Amino acid sequence: MINIYDTTICALSTAQGKGAVAVIRVSGKDAVNIVDLIFKPAKGNNLKSTSSGRVRFGTLYSGENILDEVLVTIFRSPRSYTGEDMVEISCHGSYYIQQEILMLLLSNGARLAKPGEFSQRAFLNGKMDLAQAEAVADLIASETKASHRVAIEQMKGGFSKELSVMRASLVEIVSLMELELDFSEEDVEFASRDQLKELVVSVENHVGTLIDSFKLGNVIKNGIPVAIAGATNTGKSTLLNAFLDEERAIVSEIHGTTRDFIEGFVNIEGVGYRFIDTAGIRETQEKIEIIGIERSFEKIRSSPIVILVLDAERETLFSYGIEQLVSIVNLALQKVVIVLNKTDLSKSESSIEKDQNIKRLLEQINFLCKEHNLKTEAVIPISAKERAGLDEIKEVLFRSQKVEANHSYSTLVTNVRHYEALKDTKSALARVKDGLGTSLPTDLIAQDIREALYHIGEIVGEINTEEILGNIFSKFCIGK
Amino acid sequence: MINIYDTTICALSTAQGKGAVAVIRVSGKDAVNIVDLIFKPAKGNNLKSTSSGRVRFGTLYSGENILDEVLVTIFRSPRSYTGEDMVEISCHGSYYIQQEILMLLLSNGARLAKPGEFSQRAFLNGKMDLAQAEAVADLIASETKASHRVAIEQMKGGFSKELSVMRASLVEIVSLMELELDFSEEDVEFASRDQLKELVVSVENHVGTLIDSFKLGNVIKNGIPVAIAGATNTGKSTLLNAFLDEERAIVSEIHGTTRDFIEGFVNIEGVGYRFIDTAGIRETQEKIEIIGIERSFEKIRSSPIVILVLDAERETLFSYGIEQLVSIVNLALQKVVIVLNKTDLSKSESSIEKDQNIKRLLEQINFLCKEHNLKTEAVIPISAKERAGLDEIKEVLFRSQKVEANHSYSTLVTNVRHYEALKDTKSALARVKDGLGTSLPTDLIAQDIREALYHIGEIVGEINTEEILGNIFSKFCIGK
Repeated sequence: MINIYDTTICALSTAQGKGAVAVIRVSGKDAVNIVDLIFKPAKGNNLKSTSSGRVRFGTLYSGENILDEVLVTIFRSPRSYTGEDMVEISCHGSYYIQQEILMLLLSNGARLAKPGEFSQRAFLNGKMDLAQAEAVADLIASETKASHRVAIEQMKGGFSKELSVMRASLVEIVSLMELELDFSEEDVEFASRDQLKELVVSVENHVGTLIDSFKLGNVIKNGIPVAIAGATNTGKSTLLNAFLDEERAIVSEIHGTTRDFIEGFVNIEGVGYRFIDTAGIRETQEKIEIIGIERSFEKIRSSPIVILVLDAERETLFSYGIEQLVSIVNLALQKVVIVLNKTDLSKSESSIEKDQNIKRLLEQINFLCKEHNLKTEAVIPISAKERAGLDEIKEVLFRSQKVEANHSYSTLVTNVRHYEALKDTKSALARVKDGLGTSLPTDLIAQDIREALYHIGEIVGEINTEEILGNIFSKFCIGK
Repeated sequence: MINIYDTTICALSTAQGKGAVAVIRVSGKDAVNIVDLIFKPAKGNNLKSTSSGRVRFGTLYSGENILDEVLVTIFRSPRSYTGEDMVEISCHGSYYIQQEILMLLLSNGARLAKPGEFSQRAFLNGKMDLAQAEAVADLIASETKASHRVAIEQMKGGFSKELSVMRASLVEIVSLMELELDFSEEDVEFASRDQLKELVVSVENHVGTLIDSFKLGNVIKNGIPVAIAGATNTGKSTLLNAFLDEERAIVSEIHGTTRDFIEGFVNIEGVGYRFIDTAGIRETQEKIEIIGIERSFEKIRSSPIVILVLDAERETLFSYGIEQLVSIVNLALQKVVIVLNKTDLSKSESSIEKDQNIKRLLEQINFLCKEHNLKTEAVIPISAKERAGLDEIKEVLFRSQKVEANHSYSTLVTNVRHYEALKDTKSALARVKDGLGTSLPTDLIAQDIREALYHIGEIVGEINTEEILGNIFSKFCIGK
């Protein structure tokens, strides 16, 4: 590991762009000295004699020129986020000033922080474990109440505590076994194999629960995928846009080899949903379109919720609707919401006729669902264009989510890295269990327990490599 | 004026969006009490007993739920930006957390700050005069070294000081005159009319210089307009895009009744230029196009710098080029840079032929310029598409600007409001001067001086109305 403690780092920590105020952070052994070179307090002693947790008002100079009037806050090691000496400069938030201050700090001996480097230093200085540091990034990225709650729980150390309880159990077992090894010639047993097995099974179950929680934790963190499916020109994109516009969410094209799927994040009552607009399904000979449609089916299969859009106006209402979908995609594993779109356009003129027509169509849909053995969460007449029926869809989504939210997990695993480490832990524990059952030599069993401990240690960062750390912190935003 | 001091205001002060850190400001008599309700320090006494200029680390609670771990800084009246009690909350910069904290503050008695309301309170509490408060907004908006320097000078009070010197002179004059009025029956003259006139002329000259500086101050603040003119399809837009892409500047459509002009802000060596892409000039019967072309001529006339784009490839190189431009627009007042574009496309194959061809074209251009008595800053062969020749254009722009930058103004007026007030001041002083020459009654002359004083007072905010203040501060960003 390189000696990072010799360098002093700086970065803009507030959001990019123009604001009333921007905050630039400096951390490292020369943080105070460097800022002292460019800062003149309005009154009182110089910066070096300022105590930790104090704010100073004064002027930043670039040579002879006044750059800005700023607030400077001093944090002395170890009472800072990173554990090092830190200075926070709160300046006027023009782009020009932000850039100039950073340039000044660089020319006075600091270097630009890499993404996540402040948190990495906090971890390396023992201010938080790795799972907590990762939770900081999750916290900043969280867009919903649910994802925020999971992140803050992890940041406060809830998950780390659970892991440390498990570690303690395993360390106890392995200690007993090693004691036995020391006395191996006397052939004593400090703990019965059955007792040990019971302990291992208890830890294994705990790990299993954490692994199981990942499925839910992951959707809470990234949003629950909702595939919008249906024939071409049934109004799938209009529906997506209607949701996004109302929620002021960010529409983003998913980059990759194909740019076929438009996703949008929608926050419904504190839970995030990722709406995925899939390619319209129709019979075609066109090669590229066939690939697109096959991809749609994949998206539909992998989404826990599918909104099937039917067109109230179409002559062949159900071609490439329910029948096709049921025949191609196994919808048994998903929750299906059927929406009957374009109810505003229905051809009959009078509103009574219209209502009757829609009623008739809904009955047909219900009949078809029964016929194809398709359980639906709801069948909802809507007009995506006129934004009618959206609230009903949201309610159904929220209701179907609510069941999942009433989970029994005390901790939710949201991080793929943790998930993988937990799976490795579980495999090692399974071997331990088998070994205890088949009276494997004690030293071999102890070795498997140590492997389980290793994988748990990976999560909180007791076992780490430069590569793992680089990989984790590079995903942070700059300035944290 | 409403009693603003009763309310406590809050706002996000850092830039919109996600960042490592966000800062929320609270100002008003209940600022500390309100934050105290939702903040629990990690250790030590509660917030109320915290002294000014101290930072506290702790947890924000929304009811029972932990919202975030934050830093809270206390500023006690009058030692704060607004002059009131202030609290700054430095939280994790997720959009969710920002919103939740603001909601929490609102539900505990604060209200959302209007744009510029913190600065307005700073002004009303005597922390800065109006010209200084306006400079804060300019400072945040400044994108170049030059505009930054003007803004910081004004914020530090340079302009205000000049005004106060003038005010002192005028107050002295008016006092002498009023003294004379008190002793009017004795017919004494405390100062000779000639001496008074000399003083008035000196102030008037000073005001005149400030008024003159506005033209330069305004372009420094908003960028120097550079019209890109020429026939259709000569590559004007490609040239604009080449500049913008290289400078990573923001392209913005100018909204208004017409959307004909695309502008882009480019920072060249610390000076801002506003490039304006005008509609291509050609003969046409099409009504809308004629209007567009007429607007192009207006833009060309009002821009101090014109880049005339000619097409090296075109058979009729100069139709709607130099001749037309000279005949329609009076280019005598502007600086003209001629660029010969598309030199990469020149039809001849060999590079020697190409060079000769371009050389011949450049000679023709020079000849035509002479013929039409058109002085140009430079004639530059370029290829907008291949980004060749851009640096040469920049150099010419910067050189032509440099002359302007070598100005003799000690202060630059950049604000239209100030400019208008200074013009009103000057008119009043002109009347004073006339009055002194024609032995107008002293009380009438004194009245005109008082009017001049009134207009100077408007600038620093000694004379203000609710309406003026609302107008000024509503242009600020939220949180300042």
